[in-house]
Amino acid sequence: MVEDKFSPFAKETLAKLIKFQEDEVLPAQKIAHAQLPDDPVLRWKTVIPVIEELKVKARKLGLWNLFLSKAHYPEHGVPLTNLEYAVMAEVLGRAGHMGSEAVNCSAPDTGNMEVLARYGSPEQQKKWLVPLLNGEIRSSFAMTERFVSSSDATNIRTSIRQEGNEIVINGHKWWISGAGDPRTRLHLVMGKSDPNNANSHQQQSVVIVPADAPGVKIIRQMHVMGYDDAPEGHSEIIYDNVRVPLSNLVMGWGRGFEIIQGRLGPGRIHHCMRSIGAAQLALDTMIQRVTDPSRKTFGKYLYEHGTVVSDIAKSRAEIESARLLVYSAALQIDKFKAKGAMKEIGIAKFVVPSMALQVVDRAMQAFGAQGLSQDTDLALMWANLRTLRLADGPDAVHIQQVGQRELKRAPTLAKKAAEIKKKEAALFEKYNLKPPA
Amino acid sequence: MVEDKFSPFAKETLAKLIKFQEDEVLPAQKIAHAQLPDDPVLRWKTVIPVIEELKVKARKLGLWNLFLSKAHYPEHGVPLTNLEYAVMAEVLGRAGHMGSEAVNCSAPDTGNMEVLARYGSPEQQKKWLVPLLNGEIRSSFAMTERFVSSSDATNIRTSIRQEGNEIVINGHKWWISGAGDPRTRLHLVMGKSDPNNANSHQQQSVVIVPADAPGVKIIRQMHVMGYDDAPEGHSEIIYDNVRVPLSNLVMGWGRGFEIIQGRLGPGRIHHCMRSIGAAQLALDTMIQRVTDPSRKTFGKYLYEHGTVVSDIAKSRAEIESARLLVYSAALQIDKFKAKGAMKEIGIAKFVVPSMALQVVDRAMQAFGAQGLSQDTDLALMWANLRTLRLADGPDAVHIQQVGQRELKRAPTLAKKAAEIKKKEAALFEKYNLKPPA
Amino acid sequence: MVEDKFSPFAKETLAKLIKFQEDEVLPAQKIAHAQLPDDPVLRWKTVIPVIEELKVKARKLGLWNLFLSKAHYPEHGVPLTNLEYAVMAEVLGRAGHMGSEAVNCSAPDTGNMEVLARYGSPEQQKKWLVPLLNGEIRSSFAMTERFVSSSDATNIRTSIRQEGNEIVINGHKWWISGAGDPRTRLHLVMGKSDPNNANSHQQQSVVIVPADAPGVKIIRQMHVMGYDDAPEGHSEIIYDNVRVPLSNLVMGWGRGFEIIQGRLGPGRIHHCMRSIGAAQLALDTMIQRVTDPSRKTFGKYLYEHGTVVSDIAKSRAEIESARLLVYSAALQIDKFKAKGAMKEIGIAKFVVPSMALQVVDRAMQAFGAQGLSQDTDLALMWANLRTLRLADGPDAVHIQQVGQRELKRAPTLAKKAAEIKKKEAALFEKYNLKPPA
Amino acid sequence: MVEDKFSPFAKETLAKLIKFQEDEVLPAQKIAHAQLPDDPVLRWKTVIPVIEELKVKARKLGLWNLFLSKAHYPEHGVPLTNLEYAVMAEVLGRAGHMGSEAVNCSAPDTGNMEVLARYGSPEQQKKWLVPLLNGEIRSSFAMTERFVSSSDATNIRTSIRQEGNEIVINGHKWWISGAGDPRTRLHLVMGKSDPNNANSHQQQSVVIVPADAPGVKIIRQMHVMGYDDAPEGHSEIIYDNVRVPLSNLVMGWGRGFEIIQGRLGPGRIHHCMRSIGAAQLALDTMIQRVTDPSRKTFGKYLYEHGTVVSDIAKSRAEIESARLLVYSAALQIDKFKAKGAMKEIGIAKFVVPSMALQVVDRAMQAFGAQGLSQDTDLALMWANLRTLRLADGPDAVHIQQVGQRELKRAPTLAKKAAEIKKKEAALFEKYNLKPPA
Repeated sequence: MVEDKFSPFAKETLAKLIKFQEDEVLPAQKIAHAQLPDDPVLRWKTVIPVIEELKVKARKLGLWNLFLSKAHYPEHGVPLTNLEYAVMAEVLGRAGHMGSEAVNCSAPDTGNMEVLARYGSPEQQKKWLVPLLNGEIRSSFAMTERFVSSSDATNIRTSIRQEGNEIVINGHKWWISGAGDPRTRLHLVMGKSDPNNANSHQQQSVVIVPADAPGVKIIRQMHVMGYDDAPEGHSEIIYDNVRVPLSNLVMGWGRGFEIIQGRLGPGRIHHCMRSIGAAQLALDTMIQRVTDPSRKTFGKYLYEHGTVVSDIAKSRAEIESARLLVYSAALQIDKFKAKGAMKEIGIAKFVVPSMALQVVDRAMQAFGAQGLSQDTDLALMWANLRTLRLADGPDAVHIQQVGQRELKRAPTLAKKAAEIKKKEAALFEKYNLKPPA
Repeated sequence: MVEDKFSPFAKETLAKLIKFQEDEVLPAQKIAHAQLPDDPVLRWKTVIPVIEELKVKARKLGLWNLFLSKAHYPEHGVPLTNLEYAVMAEVLGRAGHMGSEAVNCSAPDTGNMEVLARYGSPEQQKKWLVPLLNGEIRSSFAMTERFVSSSDATNIRTSIRQEGNEIVINGHKWWISGAGDPRTRLHLVMGKSDPNNANSHQQQSVVIVPADAPGVKIIRQMHVMGYDDAPEGHSEIIYDNVRVPLSNLVMGWGRGFEIIQGRLGPGRIHHCMRSIGAAQLALDTMIQRVTDPSRKTFGKYLYEHGTVVSDIAKSRAEIESARLLVYSAALQIDKFKAKGAMKEIGIAKFVVPSMALQVVDRAMQAFGAQGLSQDTDLALMWANLRTLRLADGPDAVHIQQVGQRELKRAPTLAKKAAEIKKKEAALFEKYNLKPPA
Repeated sequence: MVEDKFSPFAKETLAKLIKFQEDEVLPAQKIAHAQLPDDPVLRWKTVIPVIEELKVKARKLGLWNLFLSKAHYPEHGVPLTNLEYAVMAEVLGRAGHMGSEAVNCSAPDTGNMEVLARYGSPEQQKKWLVPLLNGEIRSSFAMTERFVSSSDATNIRTSIRQEGNEIVINGHKWWISGAGDPRTRLHLVMGKSDPNNANSHQQQSVVIVPADAPGVKIIRQMHVMGYDDAPEGHSEIIYDNVRVPLSNLVMGWGRGFEIIQGRLGPGRIHHCMRSIGAAQLALDTMIQRVTDPSRKTFGKYLYEHGTVVSDIAKSRAEIESARLLVYSAALQIDKFKAKGAMKEIGIAKFVVPSMALQVVDRAMQAFGAQGLSQDTDLALMWANLRTLRLADGPDAVHIQQVGQRELKRAPTLAKKAAEIKKKEAALFEKYNLKPPA
Repeated sequence: MVEDKFSPFAKETLAKLIKFQEDEVLPAQKIAHAQLPDDPVLRWKTVIPVIEELKVKARKLGLWNLFLSKAHYPEHGVPLTNLEYAVMAEVLGRAGHMGSEAVNCSAPDTGNMEVLARYGSPEQQKKWLVPLLNGEIRSSFAMTERFVSSSDATNIRTSIRQEGNEIVINGHKWWISGAGDPRTRLHLVMGKSDPNNANSHQQQSVVIVPADAPGVKIIRQMHVMGYDDAPEGHSEIIYDNVRVPLSNLVMGWGRGFEIIQGRLGPGRIHHCMRSIGAAQLALDTMIQRVTDPSRKTFGKYLYEHGTVVSDIAKSRAEIESARLLVYSAALQIDKFKAKGAMKEIGIAKFVVPSMALQVVDRAMQAFGAQGLSQDTDLALMWANLRTLRLADGPDAVHIQQVGQRELKRAPTLAKKAAEIKKKEAALFEKYNLKPPA
């Protein structure tokens, strides 16, 4: 469907990426795991050596910052469309967090780089964007707050106010991904700078907070289904009278809402793209399991039992159709930017993670208890995918938005129906027939 | 996704088709219904005038035989790809059987024309294909048999044997669509000509039987969910010592299996294409209903109750993804013929009708009892769609085939896994780490 | 689960009922069908002889009016609890409409008899209830209106007003079940007698309208899927200045809402009970099909293909659990009347029909096209069950009510949670531990 | 439904249990968590003080060994039926592992006590059963093996052979629950003592292995999702030339299969019972969340958004029906022992965990990311419930068994159908009607 929309550069890059992943990334996954200590303190202070080595190799190969489309970011971007990146992100999704990190395409850095590339001052770009683009540092985006429903941005309580030449930040955030990582140098903090502004979308601002600024207190790490996701983690953080220079304000006072809107566009779809890859990996893993002669029971292969073949066929179909939805959304973004692709993004956002969870769940079932354990990728994959039904807006929000958008077609439909009705009435008269009751 | 794959001719044809449907076909639907008598005998003897008038108009507009791709049928075909026709078939699907019939694209004639165009002798083509292509006559394909599971073609019992210069046919068929229509002139009858052939795929032959040949006895019409689908119908037929000239044999003795294989390719997908249109129509109808101020209850629009908005969003998503699956299959057929598109056809075949049934069911629920009645298109649409989960092979057959095809990827997957495992082992050694248990 | 709750009378009656059904009713079903003419006019004028004969036999056996529980209707009732009747209704449900009619337990007569037995004047009871109880006449309940959402009773437009000693009725109803039957003698018509009453539940009245009163105009019969359900039918009726004596008012002016509330209690659950029987019949039919040696394909029984065994197991489980829900609701009605069983009735109401539809759908699939035709019970069964997702309130209404009822538990839950929290805090202090963040 | 089946003793016990749980167990849950160290080594050496204190209190109250029905275990049992215990187990299920442990009803000890009570020698009972009944020690059941599909018991490779007066055990097991617990004193190990026996069900034996016997090597702890379930754990164990006295053989040589069959009966249903409680807790938690004023978004309670009310109603319905299935299975066990309740147990086994997972998943979604974290019970609950779709046989095994059992009804159904057909034919003759085609 999309082959003819790929540039020669994209084709070449994709081929390199696949080779790099199979030759370098996938064989290194368990190494990375082994290089992360079990110790509950040390694991948060570790920079995993093998990942840093992979980053060097990837960059040499030109497999770097592939998410940043030159069409939208002429200065820093890579000549790839969103559609082309969609296919690559699917490849990355087969290798977990590490797959993306190795080519400097991992969240939340990707979104943060987009923010800084689009909205950052030259000074901010030099200080923060360049090392991020170089993969030298990492970053967090601090929006979600404890004790409030911060999916409604007007509920946000973190205070961001000017005091002389400084900005003072006070707030209580959690689920701040990446804040646990020893390489993280900055948090983009969203808060209220003008809480009484009549326009509820101009109350918020975003400010750059150095990770080591006095008053930045990481309280604890949140777990996801038992996983701490060290060293990145998802931190609970109190910003306690944190002070930063005025120049750390991004874009201007009251532009926070605008910034997060811009940030959420293609990023949402990156998750979906990777989820397709995860689902595909789960299916591939399942196929190997059910055809494994050593797993025969009662003289039959696993695939000869129960509904296994049907489960595999359904998984295949669900992956294919979800993939096409993602391609369609990516293409729409390429054509009309994220704003013109809200329907396609929304649909992908609520369809793809649930689809992938289901495929992974079937694979887990085929593996028995092992499928829930540390011995396959499936359990961690499920945990990660499960968060995607909540991250960047829970499913329900996207479902409602897509549904409401459909309702707006009502007047057009009613008008067309009335026209047909009118012609129909004329025909009944012409044929001298009695119209139905 | 597919706009750039459309030729100028296809774009123009599509635009004409949409206009023709809205201006002529849709307003005429209830006329056609009113022109069909209730009388249980007369309704099978009626040629509905308004449909014949529409056919004349359509042909003048060049909206004719759109299903027959010139690429595959150079002599009789239209310069449209399967993908281009897919989009048009979706349009046709919004107007029930009549939509297709008006442009001479209705089953089972389409498949029969393909058979005659591909396998028919010049004489057969002249006598039967030409009037079919002209929309002057109609036809049936007689394969399914009562009392046996004829989805396994080796179970077929109808006997086709040579006697001198004649072929003698004896058999008991049912669900022979179109055989009730007074315009139907021929049945393509599949039967066993060589039941003891060691190759079970060479036992069958197909022969042309004139609808009025002595011994062709229509026993009764089968109903689908209460509908008789007059005047086409789905007939139970006994072929009782029917005799036809030897020249009525299609392609040659023992070629029957080959013929039905060829016949089933794109035809399967035509149904899917139309189903997308039906589902889209159901959703459009539902949107009008739930936004209708006269249907408010307890002071609220229907869409403000319960899960209506969510149902609409899910329907939207399901239609989008199913449509993409159909496009993908059509494109694959264009590139690699039906044989090279078995996976895509199979997936579409078991996904699309179930999807459409679900969308229609939600719409029926929004309409209340009216949604099950003769006052909307929904009930008949549901009945028609329900048959598609059985026609041309029940869902289960396609699911199994897609699943089995996936299993064939196992050796490649296992090989790749082994290679990664080997590299992984090398890395553990290099890093001097203990591999996991 | 319920055996020990059956009286000896109930056990004996159940045994008789099962025998009667197997010996008399089931063998007569196709006879009844054959005795109903195809002619679109005559079929509405026919009293099916074999059903009348069955009624005579049933009454002699004491299998009569089993739905009318003596506990609630001391004068006319039968000494059966709702739970006991639930089990019998499941038996009846295996034999379609005819099963219930043969023992004078068919809707809408059952609900109408309950209304007249509970709210009718002695004169009304003598004139209308007694012949209904005797199975000599039939009846309709005219509530649903065309062009309005009459599931919200305040939307009803039919006018019922007093003029001297008469009541004048004007209105446009549809989906009036049973009004097509030549034996139907009365309609219980619901309308607005006091449309401006501040209490919206006192605006309605119910009045008895003789079926042959001048001004009662049956416009047409509504179809369900493709079925007209003759001779009962579901009629569209205009009440055009219909005049009845004042004594035909039921219960009193403004009591209409109360009457329909009372009418809807156990009646809702009768449908569910019968649906269990229908689902069970579908499963039994499916089991016979998939084990039928003559339906083998590719050398294997149908049950050896695909997901058939799994489908059967799921159907079994779904029927079992739905049956228990119905028993639970019936028992609750026995203990606390319909009002005290709203949760249980509501759950059964939205769970059971969908469950039964799914089981029937699986069976249809196992039968191939035949499963959609007039040759098995499945298609008609599906059509009937589909209406139950709308009759007496669409699923969504019951789902919302059950959900809202659950939300009312919130304060109790919050209180209990607070108590536990308090004790927990005390324990943290006692153990000198730091409570979690 | 079941109230009248409860003895006065059971009612009193249930009331005490509920009070004990609310007053003592639930407030202590986070204490228990806090008393378990994070340290990856220490957490496996910890006996959690607060649980031991609860055990003392529970035993004083007579809340002890409630699972062991006196009817089946006259000597050691408690006068409770399985049905009565089902209701209590649901209560226990609201408090996780700890709820059951506090009253000495936690797996795998329960099943092991049943094995020893039923099959153990007096000596074995004195040494192992009595301290287990007293809650002084814990135990494991070692059946599942790594590298083989041990759900087919004939695949088991662990060798158990006699050498003089000793038994020698060699094998590689995993997923041995409880083996990590410092209080565990014995493993019941299943292995092959007669691998060449023609009767594949007499090849296995079960032997008691002291947890500290030389050669018992715990390799590692398996994780479930990201949880290690310390201190119980699910251990991978190598039995390396472990030697035990001959008297440690349970029941006799070759009786292993019999023992596991006996062990799996009610135990399977205990898990289901607890799952109902877990689901109910999840729903209660969800209700509190969606009615929490502090979680309002866009001015509305959470329950006013999307499909929340519908999700709650469906959860309520699913819990109710699953509960009734479990009651039904428990009652059947009481009446006909586990063997006579295979259908009911099988249905509950594959229906209940999936139901509970779905309810928990909806609750997680209502809680947002918090619902996946360590801050609610939901994530751990999901992980535990997920294992139940695999433990004691994966869903697919139970589904196939229930389905196959249904197929056995085919001959009876066919016979009854033939009888009705015969009567029908007679009626067609009697009425002089032509039977349908």
